[in-house]
Amino acid sequence: MRIAVLGTGSVGQAIPARSAVLGHQVTIGTRDVAATRAGEYAAWAAQHPEVGLATLAEAASAAELVVNATNGNGSLPALTAAGAPNLAGKVLLDIANPLDFGAGFPPTLSVHNTDSLAERIQREFPQTRVVKSLNTLTAELMAHPRQLADGEHSVFVSGDDAEAKRIVTGLLVSFGHNDVIDLGDLSSARGTEMLLPLWLRLFGRLDTANFNFKVVR
Amino acid sequence: MRIAVLGTGSVGQAIPARSAVLGHQVTIGTRDVAATRAGEYAAWAAQHPEVGLATLAEAASAAELVVNATNGNGSLPALTAAGAPNLAGKVLLDIANPLDFGAGFPPTLSVHNTDSLAERIQREFPQTRVVKSLNTLTAELMAHPRQLADGEHSVFVSGDDAEAKRIVTGLLVSFGHNDVIDLGDLSSARGTEMLLPLWLRLFGRLDTANFNFKVVR
Repeated sequence: MRIAVLGTGSVGQAIPARSAVLGHQVTIGTRDVAATRAGEYAAWAAQHPEVGLATLAEAASAAELVVNATNGNGSLPALTAAGAPNLAGKVLLDIANPLDFGAGFPPTLSVHNTDSLAERIQREFPQTRVVKSLNTLTAELMAHPRQLADGEHSVFVSGDDAEAKRIVTGLLVSFGHNDVIDLGDLSSARGTEMLLPLWLRLFGRLDTANFNFKVVR
Repeated sequence: MRIAVLGTGSVGQAIPARSAVLGHQVTIGTRDVAATRAGEYAAWAAQHPEVGLATLAEAASAAELVVNATNGNGSLPALTAAGAPNLAGKVLLDIANPLDFGAGFPPTLSVHNTDSLAERIQREFPQTRVVKSLNTLTAELMAHPRQLADGEHSVFVSGDDAEAKRIVTGLLVSFGHNDVIDLGDLSSARGTEMLLPLWLRLFGRLDTANFNFKVVR
């Protein structure tokens, strides 16, 4: 599959590296290619020559599946820069969380309760098939779930398009996720985005990001 | 321990029954004793003669530990009826969730993100030692956690008073909880209250309330 990953942070490195190993053709999209090449990304890129780098629009244009791995507060501008026509008809795996660090740590949510970032993106890009997933665990475990408890933990998908959820679920299973729970329509992303305040507290108390939730039933 | 449980719903039955079996002296507090005796509660009460029934104020007055098992939207009025002097100095285990069913199912949260029901209660009753816990799982599993996966799942405590959290944790462990995670101060209750939207979606998708979250690490 041709995959574009928008964003160059920890998620924007873990997902491309893992996807490339699995045989996908992966391009990272960034706002300023030259600046990204000159920054911290350079060392990672040198170790991952198989992953391309392009502008947000170029990466999205060439892809079948687009991953939103940008910061939640920068997601709408980044997707706008990627271009609605380049995203039309495509599956958008939205991993971003609407964290607001304006008042320090722990952050609050900039959208919550009766709306979600995923729904905002869907409203802004109605031709795109948005699926929320992977936003409830740390980047390394998104891509390598078997590194923790042999993968005995859960991940969620939310979306209005059943086929798009099927495609994302297939990708997650190929990463090693063995408990992918379909929560229903995209408004269920409110639930996983609102899990972040608990995740952040646990991160502080456990002193590690290497944990995840398992839905025991 | 002398325990008062305010509320006569599923939580207000599961916690008293379990606590009485463990040797505690338990009284259920209700707004109108005569009406409660004449209602659905009667059948349950007949099977649990060891559990007392009294007004909210009488129950709270006699107790060392008070459990808030009322509906979230009715918690502040119920605690006001119980009486601040009757709650002063005592541990209040707050299990309620601020669910607003005004727009149907699934409910939204009436307080969230930058505040929580637990914090509201604490502000209203500053002499009381509020501990938020057990609000993230179904009533039956609160009291009998070993009924699911031999208790291999997690529960959280939040509170500003370390001794009060120790007392609540002891009660939970006696119920059979073997992974009680201290999230920190009472503002961490925002995280567990905001877990409810995900819980409610899972309840709908799994078609059972007999599940819980395990923090795998």
